[in-house]
Amino acid sequence: MSINHTKREGEIELDVDPSETADDARLVFIGRIRSPWTERAACPKNMKAARETGQPATVEIGAEWRQGLAGLERASHIVLLTWLDQSQRNLIIQKPRHAETASGTFALRSPARPNPIGLHVVRLLRLDQAEGVLHIEAIDVLDKTPLIDIKPYYASTDAVAEAVIAPR
Amino acid sequence: MSINHTKREGEIELDVDPSETADDARLVFIGRIRSPWTERAACPKNMKAARETGQPATVEIGAEWRQGLAGLERASHIVLLTWLDQSQRNLIIQKPRHAETASGTFALRSPARPNPIGLHVVRLLRLDQAEGVLHIEAIDVLDKTPLIDIKPYYASTDAVAEAVIAPR
Repeated sequence: MSINHTKREGEIELDVDPSETADDARLVFIGRIRSPWTERAACPKNMKAARETGQPATVEIGAEWRQGLAGLERASHIVLLTWLDQSQRNLIIQKPRHAETASGTFALRSPARPNPIGLHVVRLLRLDQAEGVLHIEAIDVLDKTPLIDIKPYYASTDAVAEAVIAPR
Repeated sequence: MSINHTKREGEIELDVDPSETADDARLVFIGRIRSPWTERAACPKNMKAARETGQPATVEIGAEWRQGLAGLERASHIVLLTWLDQSQRNLIIQKPRHAETASGTFALRSPARPNPIGLHVVRLLRLDQAEGVLHIEAIDVLDKTPLIDIKPYYASTDAVAEAVIAPR
C-alpha cells in the first residue's frame, strides 16, 4: 500500500492496489483547492463540519481552463470533484475512527477508496473568471487538493431531501 | 479531437486535448452501468428525464470490489460517478442542442468536459452484494458506461433544496 495507515479492527486491504495498477482512464488536474486546512487533524471530516467552521475557501483554476467558467456565476451552489491524493486506494472494508463497526468502502464517504474522488456541494460566493478564482463558503479538504471537475448544482435532480440512511 | 462533434455556433475547442495528454492521476473501472439506452438519441439527457421514463437500470460491480458494498443497502439513495467514455474532452465553450447561447463547460452538465465524469443521484431499490448487482430506479447514461465510484447520499450535506440557477 502506498500510504501508511494503521489497520483497525475488521479492516480489509485488497492485494491489488489501484495506486499501482489503475490505468483504465486518465485524469487532468484543472485546478487546486485553497483551504485553511494544512494538516489532517484540523481538516473538517465532512461538508457539514466544514460549513460550521465559518471558514471560507477558494478554488484556483488553471489558465487554460478559465474560459470554461463562463456562466457558472449564475449558480448559487456548485459541485466540486476533487482528487484526494493522500488517500489509500486498496482499503475495501474500513472502520472510521468513531464508528463502532467496519463497513464496505462504498457505504462510506471516507477518502480511502479505489478512485479517491471527493464530492463536495458548496455555496458559490463569487467567481472571478479572469483570475480563475472561485470563492466558496467552506470545504472539507486539505489545502492544495487537486480539482478534477466543477458542475452547476441543480436542486431538481441533485437535491433529495427525503433520502435516508437506515440504522444498523 | 478524439470524438467527432460538429461544432456549433460559438463553441471553442482547446488545442490541447486531455484525451491524448491527461496523466495527472489514473482511474480503475469498478463496474459498469446496465441501462436500457444503447443509442445516444434514446438516452435521457439528465436524471429528471431518466426518472420520468419509468425504466429501471442495474449496476454490475466487478468481483474484486464487491466486499466494498457491505452496508450500502442501508442507503435509500446513492451517488454514482461514471466515466463518460464517449465524450469529447477539449470542448471548453459549448452550445447544447436546445440552448440559445454557448456557455462554459463548467457551467453545464454536458458529458463533454476535460474529465468526463458523470454524477448521478439515484434511488437504490435493491442490492445483491454476492452477485455484485445494484438495482436502481433509473439512470441517464448509455448501457455499459464504466463506473468509477459509489457513495451513500446524505441529505444533510448533499441536498440543497434552495439552490438556484439565475436566469441569463
